[in-house]
Amino acid sequence: MASYLVTGSSRGIGHELVRQLAAQPASEVSTIFATSRSVNAPLQELAGQHPGRFILVPIDVTDRDSINKAVERVESIVGDKGLDVLINNAGVVEWGWLKDMSDLNDTFNVNVTGPHIMVQAFLPLLRKGSMKKIVNISSSVGSIAKQPVYRQVPAPSYKITKAALNMMTVLYAQELADEGFTVFCVSPGWLRTNDANAHADLSVGTGVEGVLGMVRNAGVEVNGKFLNIHVPGWENNPGFNQYDGKELPW
Amino acid sequence: MASYLVTGSSRGIGHELVRQLAAQPASEVSTIFATSRSVNAPLQELAGQHPGRFILVPIDVTDRDSINKAVERVESIVGDKGLDVLINNAGVVEWGWLKDMSDLNDTFNVNVTGPHIMVQAFLPLLRKGSMKKIVNISSSVGSIAKQPVYRQVPAPSYKITKAALNMMTVLYAQELADEGFTVFCVSPGWLRTNDANAHADLSVGTGVEGVLGMVRNAGVEVNGKFLNIHVPGWENNPGFNQYDGKELPW
Repeated sequence: MASYLVTGSSRGIGHELVRQLAAQPASEVSTIFATSRSVNAPLQELAGQHPGRFILVPIDVTDRDSINKAVERVESIVGDKGLDVLINNAGVVEWGWLKDMSDLNDTFNVNVTGPHIMVQAFLPLLRKGSMKKIVNISSSVGSIAKQPVYRQVPAPSYKITKAALNMMTVLYAQELADEGFTVFCVSPGWLRTNDANAHADLSVGTGVEGVLGMVRNAGVEVNGKFLNIHVPGWENNPGFNQYDGKELPW
Repeated sequence: MASYLVTGSSRGIGHELVRQLAAQPASEVSTIFATSRSVNAPLQELAGQHPGRFILVPIDVTDRDSINKAVERVESIVGDKGLDVLINNAGVVEWGWLKDMSDLNDTFNVNVTGPHIMVQAFLPLLRKGSMKKIVNISSSVGSIAKQPVYRQVPAPSYKITKAALNMMTVLYAQELADEGFTVFCVSPGWLRTNDANAHADLSVGTGVEGVLGMVRNAGVEVNGKFLNIHVPGWENNPGFNQYDGKELPW
């Protein structure tokens, strides 16, 4: 019986996260707060299929007012049980080369400051929760050490902000460790989120399954870590990515 | 005969960088462009002592117009010889705990976006230069891997933005490697920059000496690296910091 809040749930990884959570029995996942800037038909359909359990909440992670309103809404539903798991998934990626990078501040505001103000706003509810898990969706391309492998991935502002998010994850893990929190970042893998990613390694379903299994099973032993999902058979993939479930280098 | 441009030279590490550069013979250091948001008496004194060689140039690294004007000014002086070394030193640090962190976007804009727009603006002049060195002043507290050691350093936005700067340094190192550039980040050590830092490890002079020695001697073999200064006798210091001149972990 755990409650989850997921940001950026209208599409891609975020949408698959709330879809898979909704598909689990209510005895496992009591309430899903699917948050996004705007609601779309697939989200409304899920809400219709799981009345009272799948809750649409507007959140723009760059807008503190929207977050504060969302806290009130979530609190009115969970009450003293609090919120168990916060998944900071909302993020942006802009493709392009370093010399053309003009979106750096905006990308940082969404990918790093967004998770920061989300955590601050929801901390009182997370403290009341029984699981006390904060999961930041990062990416192996945000590993500074692995850049020789990702040289050809033209997403500099994404890489820079994910490295920053990784550092922030460690700082929160340290700050909240004494209260029994588990704060970690996870790379969901290179996923076929859209047609442009048709040649990626894994289906979105497989990546998200890996993330949710990790979120479910992870205890305080992973606090402050940068984890890779585990996909059997991909441990020794000779390509860019190995999905071995182990720690990624910073 | 090398020309240097240093940002944030009105105080602290930046001021000591331009002071030590000016103290070197003109046969070693031909021109020093000491840039800062505003000019103060110590800078004016240095300019007076080294007429025609120590040049004050206004730059606010968050203001593209000021940077573009500075490029014109520097170009009018160096001409086809270009600029040899760019030291991105300007940066801000705000002290406080994670829960109070409200300056994250502003700190990022100075500490990361600032160096990015500096590099972009000065690349044409750096390409004409003979040394092609870009040095980003980072910090060992920006090492994600070393956070267990720095848990008690209450500067979250500084740590987060230095990790981001480190990633950006690697991306620039990759992008400019084929043109013969050397791009690296260096931690100048924990320095007694002011009264509040009276208990720090090293004098500002010692830290800056370490940085400038490294800048002078570093070749393309350090491209993309995160370097620690070397201070003899500090290699195995049992405290927070060891100044062994080696690579720091990301």
